[in-house]
Amino acid sequence: MKPFQEYLDLVNQAIAAIPYPEQPSQLYEPIAYHMALGGKRIRPVLALMACDAMGGDPAVAIDGAVGIEMFHNFTLLHDDVMDNADVRRGKPTVHRRWNDNTAILSGDTMLTIATQYIARTGSWPVMDLFNKTAIEIYEGQQWDMDYENRNDVTVDEYINMIRLKTSVLLGCALKTGALIANAADKDADLLYEAGVNMGLAFQLMDDMLDVWGDPETFGKEIGGDIMNNKKTFLLINAMLLAQGDDADELRHWLNDQYATRENKVRGVTALYERLGVRDMALKAIAHYNDLAIAAFNQVKMSDDDKQTFVQLANKLAGRQF
Amino acid sequence: MKPFQEYLDLVNQAIAAIPYPEQPSQLYEPIAYHMALGGKRIRPVLALMACDAMGGDPAVAIDGAVGIEMFHNFTLLHDDVMDNADVRRGKPTVHRRWNDNTAILSGDTMLTIATQYIARTGSWPVMDLFNKTAIEIYEGQQWDMDYENRNDVTVDEYINMIRLKTSVLLGCALKTGALIANAADKDADLLYEAGVNMGLAFQLMDDMLDVWGDPETFGKEIGGDIMNNKKTFLLINAMLLAQGDDADELRHWLNDQYATRENKVRGVTALYERLGVRDMALKAIAHYNDLAIAAFNQVKMSDDDKQTFVQLANKLAGRQF
Repeated sequence: MKPFQEYLDLVNQAIAAIPYPEQPSQLYEPIAYHMALGGKRIRPVLALMACDAMGGDPAVAIDGAVGIEMFHNFTLLHDDVMDNADVRRGKPTVHRRWNDNTAILSGDTMLTIATQYIARTGSWPVMDLFNKTAIEIYEGQQWDMDYENRNDVTVDEYINMIRLKTSVLLGCALKTGALIANAADKDADLLYEAGVNMGLAFQLMDDMLDVWGDPETFGKEIGGDIMNNKKTFLLINAMLLAQGDDADELRHWLNDQYATRENKVRGVTALYERLGVRDMALKAIAHYNDLAIAAFNQVKMSDDDKQTFVQLANKLAGRQF
Repeated sequence: MKPFQEYLDLVNQAIAAIPYPEQPSQLYEPIAYHMALGGKRIRPVLALMACDAMGGDPAVAIDGAVGIEMFHNFTLLHDDVMDNADVRRGKPTVHRRWNDNTAILSGDTMLTIATQYIARTGSWPVMDLFNKTAIEIYEGQQWDMDYENRNDVTVDEYINMIRLKTSVLLGCALKTGALIANAADKDADLLYEAGVNMGLAFQLMDDMLDVWGDPETFGKEIGGDIMNNKKTFLLINAMLLAQGDDADELRHWLNDQYATRENKVRGVTALYERLGVRDMALKAIAHYNDLAIAAFNQVKMSDDDKQTFVQLANKLAGRQF
């Protein structure tokens, strides 16, 4: 396998080479804008890595990789409308820079363009996996929205929600690369499992970065989840654990409409630390990272390739903060 | 070929049998609601008819037919958000009965379910045609929205817009049936051409029904396009033809924010009749209907089958008003 950067270069070249029609410009400009915002491109790189590790030519997996990244960006356009988000990767979201209708219709177009790239792989198993994964992601987004209106969300429900909303696409990316390389079913499934667990660790780390992250590298303002009372792993566990004065204080922060951002973020962060949910999150991340590594280690591939995947998993699970 | 009703029964049975997961109910209930609103089901019936006429088994085309109808309904969910429409087929639209986010996310889900049905045909040409058609439909919707802000839309631009937004899906439906029946390329292309022309006649008739239709059968309130100053074939031609007092009156109706619905609809309708754009629309419908019939007549199929298609085209082009 090659270094991460080489796969990333392949992905970025392919994304830069996507031929958007000039007209109607209101439809295609927002797509080009959003695809150029960058991002980590983890999903398409995972597809190329898996293809390479399973003995395939990563250049053959590039269409599948681009399709998955285009799909991921489509979900961001629509999620940003639904969540009324202003900023994405340090830039105005599409629905803010243009309007909701543009974000809806350009997003729809991205979903179909993504499907066209997936179709170019010529593999029905890849197409079926892609569609199944897409449905799961919509379900995850729906649960996420449903949970906003509930105060009794369990940790299991939350983990299942992020599994659907975030993790299955990482599993899908790895399995897509494996399928294109004609890997054995068992290896393709193990890679899928590794991807899902890696995704869980990744999303839990994202919850932590929202609280303890470095504003410079996070790309969004710190404390967004806290300000929105978003039911993350941290808040759900805090609600379960807080007793007496802690419970009163947590209730206060959740209900005080007039708290300043600074005070509320500082207060809730201190509560999280006092209640031990910061440590719980770190343990949960380590747990899912271990599962990901165990799955990678069972795949029939060279020790070097295993090592490359394990290093990447460790990196994603331990993003600096 | 069988009578229209038998294909329609097949389609309605298949749509009623779509297995929606129970949860998350906020995601799937709006889909079931919208698919049960009914509608003419012209597109899926066309797919079955074309498959049958080309010697295929219409039961084999049912997945493609359902996929196309699901796709059509997805576009309605999103269009109703973008157009802020209240009523669809006499019932509240999804974004009104639920909310915008539901219409967006359930719509996305419908697009992927549609793609799953298309994938079940196991035909890459069908998948490619479906995706290409979807892109054209988004482009048509974008032009439609762009034209709302322009006063110099030409008749050619308008015809191209409705070709994209409405007509290509009828062409796609017929060609999908033909492809599934392994028809000759030439016949599949002629059926596509017939469908597109049939779609143009159909949409122009829709413009007329908004003005002169029977409120009982139209399903929407008469005069919606007039109230919205929607740039239909009628308004575009009226703007081109009106001179002197007529031009002043037309400008008045377009700019008077306080006109009652009754007065504005009556006034604009009278102008349309006086300027002759009603007759122009009827002639344009006859023209596209003739092109559709000519294409059907060139397809290699039995005279009976040709007659069945021609009767259907005539019916769609001459809907009662």
